[in-house]
Amino acid sequence: MLFHVTMDVEVPRDLDPGVRADLVAREKAYCQDLQEQGRWVHIWRVVGRYSNVSVFDVGSTDELHDILWNLPLFPFMTIAVTPLCPHPSAL
Amino acid sequence: MLFHVTMDVEVPRDLDPGVRADLVAREKAYCQDLQEQGRWVHIWRVVGRYSNVSVFDVGSTDELHDILWNLPLFPFMTIAVTPLCPHPSAL
Amino acid sequence: MLFHVTMDVEVPRDLDPGVRADLVAREKAYCQDLQEQGRWVHIWRVVGRYSNVSVFDVGSTDELHDILWNLPLFPFMTIAVTPLCPHPSAL
Amino acid sequence: MLFHVTMDVEVPRDLDPGVRADLVAREKAYCQDLQEQGRWVHIWRVVGRYSNVSVFDVGSTDELHDILWNLPLFPFMTIAVTPLCPHPSAL
Amino acid sequence: MLFHVTMDVEVPRDLDPGVRADLVAREKAYCQDLQEQGRWVHIWRVVGRYSNVSVFDVGSTDELHDILWNLPLFPFMTIAVTPLCPHPSAL
Amino acid sequence: MLFHVTMDVEVPRDLDPGVRADLVAREKAYCQDLQEQGRWVHIWRVVGRYSNVSVFDVGSTDELHDILWNLPLFPFMTIAVTPLCPHPSAL
Amino acid sequence: MLFHVTMDVEVPRDLDPGVRADLVAREKAYCQDLQEQGRWVHIWRVVGRYSNVSVFDVGSTDELHDILWNLPLFPFMTIAVTPLCPHPSAL
Amino acid sequence: MLFHVTMDVEVPRDLDPGVRADLVAREKAYCQDLQEQGRWVHIWRVVGRYSNVSVFDVGSTDELHDILWNLPLFPFMTIAVTPLCPHPSAL
Amino acid sequence: MLFHVTMDVEVPRDLDPGVRADLVAREKAYCQDLQEQGRWVHIWRVVGRYSNVSVFDVGSTDELHDILWNLPLFPFMTIAVTPLCPHPSAL
Amino acid sequence: MLFHVTMDVEVPRDLDPGVRADLVAREKAYCQDLQEQGRWVHIWRVVGRYSNVSVFDVGSTDELHDILWNLPLFPFMTIAVTPLCPHPSAL
Repeated sequence: MLFHVTMDVEVPRDLDPGVRADLVAREKAYCQDLQEQGRWVHIWRVVGRYSNVSVFDVGSTDELHDILWNLPLFPFMTIAVTPLCPHPSAL
Repeated sequence: MLFHVTMDVEVPRDLDPGVRADLVAREKAYCQDLQEQGRWVHIWRVVGRYSNVSVFDVGSTDELHDILWNLPLFPFMTIAVTPLCPHPSAL
Repeated sequence: MLFHVTMDVEVPRDLDPGVRADLVAREKAYCQDLQEQGRWVHIWRVVGRYSNVSVFDVGSTDELHDILWNLPLFPFMTIAVTPLCPHPSAL
Repeated sequence: MLFHVTMDVEVPRDLDPGVRADLVAREKAYCQDLQEQGRWVHIWRVVGRYSNVSVFDVGSTDELHDILWNLPLFPFMTIAVTPLCPHPSAL
Repeated sequence: MLFHVTMDVEVPRDLDPGVRADLVAREKAYCQDLQEQGRWVHIWRVVGRYSNVSVFDVGSTDELHDILWNLPLFPFMTIAVTPLCPHPSAL
Repeated sequence: MLFHVTMDVEVPRDLDPGVRADLVAREKAYCQDLQEQGRWVHIWRVVGRYSNVSVFDVGSTDELHDILWNLPLFPFMTIAVTPLCPHPSAL
Repeated sequence: MLFHVTMDVEVPRDLDPGVRADLVAREKAYCQDLQEQGRWVHIWRVVGRYSNVSVFDVGSTDELHDILWNLPLFPFMTIAVTPLCPHPSAL
Repeated sequence: MLFHVTMDVEVPRDLDPGVRADLVAREKAYCQDLQEQGRWVHIWRVVGRYSNVSVFDVGSTDELHDILWNLPLFPFMTIAVTPLCPHPSAL
Repeated sequence: MLFHVTMDVEVPRDLDPGVRADLVAREKAYCQDLQEQGRWVHIWRVVGRYSNVSVFDVGSTDELHDILWNLPLFPFMTIAVTPLCPHPSAL
Repeated sequence: MLFHVTMDVEVPRDLDPGVRADLVAREKAYCQDLQEQGRWVHIWRVVGRYSNVSVFDVGSTDELHDILWNLPLFPFMTIAVTPLCPHPSAL
């Protein structure tokens, strides 16, 4: 079951650089682990912005919330979720 | 080169049903032809709306405009285009 | 799996009254049938508007889209879907 | 008498962790107490956001304001209230 | 129990003038009857617009919806409802 | 001459509690004094928000600005002013 | 007493050309008469739009509403009114 | 003196095809004439939309308004004008 | 050549009072000097807001930008500029 | 391949003046280097704002993102990107 998710990131300027680097590294590992599991099926960078457009394939809305809520950068993100379904013209 | 495109469709109620059916059929064929060419790489339906979220892989902005401008349902669509690029966390 | 759905209805003034009455009657029957099936779990009227706030309990986003797309009044509705999940404070 | 309420929470990053934990715990107890009284009849988490959608059943607008104003997290919430009434299609 | 209501009116240009005059007359009578009953406690015109700002004093949200839904000009109105309660500084 | 005014209050979290209490007390006295003078004719609390909806009866726009500009909480308010006039349906 | 007023005009395409010409002529005469009376103190065209920005000097909000409501093009205008007062830096 | 102008075009579906073709042809000639005069210095199509982004170099705001107001497609355009000036980093 | 300019001012609460007083005094002197030169032709206070509506008469967009960029309160202002031209109904 | 880019700059008030001056100088050098390369083809200042409107000519969306992401002032900018293509009326 697919969900379209946009994440806009705004890390506070006064965050300790070490903490920031650690968060970004953990975010990347977390993201890649979910990609390997086939649950985070697409992630693209939006040109010119600290934002991404993603597609998730999950079994339930609870599972999706659990994934998003635990993103290491979650406290610094604005997230919007749009449910998707197959398009009749898709091959 | 990837572009995120949303298309909201609003076909006028007074459009002749035969014309409408023809447009929808041509839209589907047009879309599937571009999918086969690998230029329209994703198309999903937005749940509860006559809208889709798509991703195109094209060689230029001119090529993308040409594709969109010639959509059979183009006169009845509101289209928004967002340029994408690879995300550093993508596998 | 729960989804919060708002539906704003705007029936064109020039719709034939008989057609309109038939649509509204079919909408009501369709809605009540889904309530009996336990899939349309809540429906409330928004005070002062031809709108409702609803909660659906469905097995997938496809199932939800199928329900919404086939609403008799769908052509005259603007629909917004928000995925929900259990709140940690809910009893 | 029913009211639809959305609450978006934004706790300041510099709030003392102990104060924060205490507020969240008191918020939960306050919420559950009102659920047991049958006044806070629904609460759902919005997927991917620190937000909830709730439905209250109260005797007056004053009573609702009193409940909301005294939420332990009230100073960090943006709240929107929509009055509801029974829908003619509801069973 | 007080509610703040704004009504923006947009009567279609092609409405029969006799029908329009009748609607406006019935709207006025309906409004004045509710004022006499003490349920429509304030109505002001917004300067430069075909809109009003009103305050209703009703026993329930159902009662308010019933009043608004039956406004003769309801089909041509956009209505917004905001629940009010006494202000601690009010005399 | 009537004006509809909405005031949304947002007092900074780091304001000294004594300063805050003093401001709120002076705001209340200021408001009640204007009510007694018949210039601040209505004030209601918006349910669930630190906001009010008010109606002022003043002799000029200058007088209204002078009143609003000198509100003790003015530096922490967002204010919107809408001119009103008698409605033809008002009794 | 000064008010800032913006007027956006949208004359329907199917309005009879003679009716339109008459409306526009009457609008101009009406506007110039009010200028001569010193009540419509400024009118400027917004570059690239069928809109104007105006300033009125009137004795009351009722008088302003009466002026605006009787504009020959009123049915085709969207009007916004902002109350003004002298600026302390004005000479 | 430079102005940034966006034009969104929406030609009514029921416009006579001959009238439409004539308007579009006149629009093109008008545009190209102004380009040759050096007054319409840039025009680009927005990808996926019946819109353009343009830059004008004119001697006054009056001259710009005169150009825009006389666009053959003006009645079907929504236009936004932003004044520009040289950027200190421009070569 | 006329431009309509709105300025919304938001001076940070923690600005040193002496610095603030100096800025406001310099802003006033700067504004009055431009009024005397006939370049800042109107300035009005918006009722209930720390905002003004102004009209400038300048020879070019560069000149206008230079004036605005050097406002002593510029760092604390949000400015919007709308080009104006004579209205055909103006006397 | 052309892209329309707007950049709104908001440098925090508490940024060290030396750091700020260095950033602005590096931004200018970076911008001029890209102009010389023919990749940043236009840059204009928006009158009255710390913003620019730019046009880039790049080979890909990745290249554009790389340019924007590395702007020295990127952390203090809000950027919007619109893909362009040749307009059929352009000479």
